[in-house]
Amino acid sequence: MTNTHPFDTAIALQESGIGEWDGNPGTAYSNFIGAYGGTVSATLLNAVLSDSRLHGHPVTFTVNFCAALGEQDFSVLTKLHRTGKYTQHWSLELTQGERTMATATIVCAARSETFSHQPAHMPAVNGPETYDLLKTKGVSNWIQRYDFRFVSGTLALKSEPNDPLEPSRTVAWVSDNPPRPLDHLSLAALSDSFFLRLMHIRGTMEPAGTVSITTHILATPDEIAAQGTDPILAVADGNRFHNNFHDQYMQLWGSSGKILATGSQIVWFRQ
Amino acid sequence: MTNTHPFDTAIALQESGIGEWDGNPGTAYSNFIGAYGGTVSATLLNAVLSDSRLHGHPVTFTVNFCAALGEQDFSVLTKLHRTGKYTQHWSLELTQGERTMATATIVCAARSETFSHQPAHMPAVNGPETYDLLKTKGVSNWIQRYDFRFVSGTLALKSEPNDPLEPSRTVAWVSDNPPRPLDHLSLAALSDSFFLRLMHIRGTMEPAGTVSITTHILATPDEIAAQGTDPILAVADGNRFHNNFHDQYMQLWGSSGKILATGSQIVWFRQ
Repeated sequence: MTNTHPFDTAIALQESGIGEWDGNPGTAYSNFIGAYGGTVSATLLNAVLSDSRLHGHPVTFTVNFCAALGEQDFSVLTKLHRTGKYTQHWSLELTQGERTMATATIVCAARSETFSHQPAHMPAVNGPETYDLLKTKGVSNWIQRYDFRFVSGTLALKSEPNDPLEPSRTVAWVSDNPPRPLDHLSLAALSDSFFLRLMHIRGTMEPAGTVSITTHILATPDEIAAQGTDPILAVADGNRFHNNFHDQYMQLWGSSGKILATGSQIVWFRQ
Repeated sequence: MTNTHPFDTAIALQESGIGEWDGNPGTAYSNFIGAYGGTVSATLLNAVLSDSRLHGHPVTFTVNFCAALGEQDFSVLTKLHRTGKYTQHWSLELTQGERTMATATIVCAARSETFSHQPAHMPAVNGPETYDLLKTKGVSNWIQRYDFRFVSGTLALKSEPNDPLEPSRTVAWVSDNPPRPLDHLSLAALSDSFFLRLMHIRGTMEPAGTVSITTHILATPDEIAAQGTDPILAVADGNRFHNNFHDQYMQLWGSSGKILATGSQIVWFRQ
C-alpha cells in the first residue's frame, strides 16, 4: 500500500462530464487566506491533463486569480477551443457556487527534436545541502510543503520595512516536502512557490497577492521526469513596483543545468 | 478633418450586443501569413476598453494565437467574470466563422498611489536619432508600421544560419509609423513588436510564430499619456530554445526612465 502525496490529494479532481470536474482544495496547502495559488494552477492543469481529448503536453499556461479560493468544494469547466497540427488551446474557469474564483488558458503541444540553444546562464551556486533550510514551522501550510534553501536573498520578515530596501532578486534551491518526483503538475505549482518580491525588498508582511501568473514549460517530458526528486534552482526578480502592482519573473533550473520553466506574474499590493 | 491612424482602423470594432463585437483586420498590419499579433492583441483589448462595464485600466493580459488570422471579418466575444474591490477579470474569444483564432484573458484595476520602486536598470543608450533606422521597405506591412532603431542586435537576415550564433538579447528604440500618441492599445501592440529571438540568433527566416503572449502594464495611465509620440526603448532576450519552442521576455521603457510594460511570450518553431 502506498501513501498518496498531499500534493496529489490537493489537486485531485472527479470528472462529472466532458470538461466538467469537481474538487476540494483541502488544507494541506492552505495560505493565509484561501488556497495556495500553486495548487490552484496545478489543479487547473490537472483538468486538462486528465482529459481524454488531450493532445501533447503543456507548453504555456496563464492562471488569473479572481479571489482567494475557500475550503469548500469547487467546480472546473474546461473548453477545448482547438486542436491544430502543432498546438492545442484550452480555456478554463474555476467556480465556487456562482462565483468565478479563477480563470486560465492552457496551450499543449507535441514536441520533437529541433535546434536547441540556451542563451541564459545558470547562476554559479553550490549544491543544495550547503545552504540552510528555511525555517517554516508555524507559517502557512503551503510553505511547509516545500524545502527552501536560499542561496541569496532569504526571506527575513521584520516589523518595520527595510531601510535601505533589500534586493528583489533571489536564488534558492526548492523541493517538495515530502519529496515527490517532478511532473508537469508539480512544476506548475513550483512556478508559483516564490515569495512576493515586495516581501523580500521591504521585509514586511503586507496585504498583497498574485493576480495573474504565466508559466512557459521549456523542458521536454523526459527532462522533467529525469529531475526526479532533486531540488530545483529557483531564480526570481522584479522590474517595477508602482501604484498597487509589481511584476516578478522567474526561471526554474534543473540539475542538468537546463531551464525547465520560465514565467512571470503580476502582484497586487495595497500600500 | 483629421485622418484616422491605420492602427485605429486595424483594431476598430462594432458592437453587436453586450460583449459581442465585429471587426476586420484589414491589411495595413498584415504579416507573412495573417494579421500581426500586436494588432490582434490590441483589438481584443479594445473590446474590453470599449465596454460600458469596464472598471479601471488594464494591468495584465494574455493572448493565445490558435491560428493565423485571415483577412475576413471576425467576431469577438467577451465574458466579464468578476468585478471585485480591486480587480476586474475578463476572458475573450476571437472567431472567424466557426473557428477560434485567438483567446485571451485580461485583468483591469483601478490604481492609486503606493510605495514605488524600480529595481530594474535602464540600459545606457544614446537618443533614438543617433541610431540607424531599420530598412523595412518591401517586408511585411506590420514592420513598416514601426520605426525600429537598433542599439544592439539588429536584424540581419541571411540565407544560411549564423555560425557562431548571434546574441538573443536586443535593444532598440521603437515608435509607431506614422507617429501616434501612446495609449494602452498601442502599448499592447508594441509589446508584440519584437522579432522572434530565433531570427536574431540564427539570422534566417524560418517557419515560426508566437503561440501565447503575456503583457504586464506597470505604468499608470498618466505615464502612458505623457509618453506621447516619443520612441520607446524596447529590450528583449530569450532563455531557452528547445524542441519546437522558445521563450522570450521583454521590457518597454518610457523616456522618463520608468518601465511602462514587461512581459513574455512563447514561440513555436519547426526545425
